[in-house]
Amino acid sequence: MERVSSDTVYEGQVFAVRKDTFRSPGGSEREREIVDHPGAVAVVAYDDERFWMVRQPREAVGEDALLEVPAGKLDVEGETPLQCAQRELEEEVGKRARDWREVKRTYTSPGFADEEVTIFFATGIEEGDDAEGEEEDLEVVEVPLEELEQTIAVCRDAKSLIGLLLFAAERDSG
Amino acid sequence: MERVSSDTVYEGQVFAVRKDTFRSPGGSEREREIVDHPGAVAVVAYDDERFWMVRQPREAVGEDALLEVPAGKLDVEGETPLQCAQRELEEEVGKRARDWREVKRTYTSPGFADEEVTIFFATGIEEGDDAEGEEEDLEVVEVPLEELEQTIAVCRDAKSLIGLLLFAAERDSG
Repeated sequence: MERVSSDTVYEGQVFAVRKDTFRSPGGSEREREIVDHPGAVAVVAYDDERFWMVRQPREAVGEDALLEVPAGKLDVEGETPLQCAQRELEEEVGKRARDWREVKRTYTSPGFADEEVTIFFATGIEEGDDAEGEEEDLEVVEVPLEELEQTIAVCRDAKSLIGLLLFAAERDSG
Repeated sequence: MERVSSDTVYEGQVFAVRKDTFRSPGGSEREREIVDHPGAVAVVAYDDERFWMVRQPREAVGEDALLEVPAGKLDVEGETPLQCAQRELEEEVGKRARDWREVKRTYTSPGFADEEVTIFFATGIEEGDDAEGEEEDLEVVEVPLEELEQTIAVCRDAKSLIGLLLFAAERDSG
């Protein structure tokens, strides 16, 4: 599959839209509309007793307080996914973590968007400089580990579900 | 949170882009760029020995053969998510299922897209009319149940990961 042309048809603040033409090995051509997104990170941060979630308004899906793991866009030039995850955990939850492990890179909507989310497990939790996280409109939620399954049951955000389900699978197999 | 204005800034084949302005209960306004998508379905279809996956080119993420569960867009007027899932399983894999269970509704990218994916478990598998699925560029993959964990390890598609992880959790707890 080879890209033979690319036109930017919309240029926004958070993403752009391209119309790209691809040629298959057999020679046929197809056009695809693609949301061009910088990518994102998500963090399952936990200790022996709890893990941390956030609630925030998600206007795109009509939710006033969607429950998610700490996360954010790769929107700082030159920042790696790990650095972005460390920054987001401190900004959103007010915590740092000594130990970081990348557990999955996932495409959220590969049919029409290039967004890739890198999911980390973060342990060895310490207080950050921004005590408690200071983002407007964002509520930090400490969830006891015993409520992991109920949290998965009510969670609707894809990156969070993948992170929490991987976390649950590891706890069950350990 | 109340939407006070909405402008369509791009109108494509698969999705549109809107710029909407929202007013918070406190009175502040914010603008959001939103990918307006019809939504989709995904199916974990399995029997006592195997489950079914597909491989297909996903140009948006530069993959020639991305491994996913059978899935598709809600692009037929008046079709429910369940009807869409039944159609997609037959079109893509050439199978029907007697028993269907909705297990999750998930937002794939709630920061910038309204796409919601409804995930089903399908059992009681029977041959469909389109033997083996007849979509161009799509390869059907029968995976033995013993390879569920390896499949999760290599899978990168978000809706498929959620479906397979929920399936694995149910098998472990059963």
